Amino acid sequence: MKPLPRTLELFYDVLSPYCWLGFEVLCRYQHIWNVKLQLRPSLIAGIMRESGNRPPAMIPRKAQYLRSDVKLQGQHFQVPIQFPKDFFGVILEKGSVSAMRFLTAVNMECPEMLEKVSRELWIRIWARDEDTVQLQSIQAAAEKAGMSAEDARALLEKISTPQVKNQLRETTEAACKYGAFGLPIVVAHIDGKTHMLFGSDRMELLAHLLGEKWMGPAPPALSARL
Amino acid sequence: MKPLPRTLELFYDVLSPYCWLGFEVLCRYQHIWNVKLQLRPSLIAGIMRESGNRPPAMIPRKAQYLRSDVKLQGQHFQVPIQFPKDFFGVILEKGSVSAMRFLTAVNMECPEMLEKVSRELWIRIWARDEDTVQLQSIQAAAEKAGMSAEDARALLEKISTPQVKNQLRETTEAACKYGAFGLPIVVAHIDGKTHMLFGSDRMELLAHLLGEKWMGPAPPALSARL
Repeated sequence: MKPLPRTLELFYDVLSPYCWLGFEVLCRYQHIWNVKLQLRPSLIAGIMRESGNRPPAMIPRKAQYLRSDVKLQGQHFQVPIQFPKDFFGVILEKGSVSAMRFLTAVNMECPEMLEKVSRELWIRIWARDEDTVQLQSIQAAAEKAGMSAEDARALLEKISTPQVKNQLRETTEAACKYGAFGLPIVVAHIDGKTHMLFGSDRMELLAHLLGEKWMGPAPPALSARL
Repeated sequence: MKPLPRTLELFYDVLSPYCWLGFEVLCRYQHIWNVKLQLRPSLIAGIMRESGNRPPAMIPRKAQYLRSDVKLQGQHFQVPIQFPKDFFGVILEKGSVSAMRFLTAVNMECPEMLEKVSRELWIRIWARDEDTVQLQSIQAAAEKAGMSAEDARALLEKISTPQVKNQLRETTEAACKYGAFGLPIVVAHIDGKTHMLFGSDRMELLAHLLGEKWMGPAPPALSARL
């Protein structure tokens, strides 16, 4: 008898390119490893503030490194990341509150769409340098993900409700309780133990903890499934 | 005809457990990949100061995470890391100036001993919670690595000379020029291009850049060599 799948919670924010990398790796491996992936949309700004951490880009040499690291990692992970032109404007001024509230509403009302809508929001910011703050931008991402225009509009109307706001706050607080000082984090529930792993670069360690095989960030899914 | 080996420079400080992880991975793969590994003893405190970065342990949640991450990574990398009891005392007060000056002298006078002496210093701090500040502690590490007591003493006498001090300063400055804001960094010279990779968690990316096979942090060396 196959053992029960282990639960992996992925806390993420579409503002972070490293979250995108971690997200794609886990979306691939959820079909290969014996795991159940739970996507947990969170607010990275809240986590940074709460933990006293600063965005890495505030240190000039880190900002410079980030640019080359994200590019190389994107190629290696086969995720089409491109740096937005006005990086600081995107990260520090525009932020992701509306986008993450929208994903929270998607998760509450039609969770089966969450993976696709999240990806389309990353593609807007981190591949095509497009806005994700205006409501019509979020609407466009939702439709691109396959949501009807009416459904997307109905969800957009909910992003300012206390229910959605509170849920996003609760998820962000849950990440903090697990010890987050940034995103992404994976919280892996394995054999009664809980492991919090920070960053998109702990996926091989995750495989090790799960006792599953690591085949790189872009596994040959088909052959692995056979 | 086999192509010329690519040069990998590893900048490291024995004060950092992540440096130890990166060091062991590259010491293993130097016998598997077509590379030439250059060990570059540097001073992490100088790099932090110069770049305006802060040690991760200054953020309480990061310090807490560091503890569990280093433990898990040590198991995964098969490196016998144990946290020293007085972590902050070791990192912030004791530091590594004498140890890194000694390794600099070793590199200048008998570079063939550098790998082993470096490892013995890490074992003292990060496996057995022993001192590395007193000269007799450094002497003990050198002897454990196979150096004669006389050679070790002769090198210890040189650690306060301008030649050794300047060499350590120059190596640390070289790391800064490559964009370091912490250690370890690997500077990979591949096909006329220079890539700076930060952290012990970029080794699979390094394999990707080299076009070499990644077999995890503890590769089955023998079978790979056949």
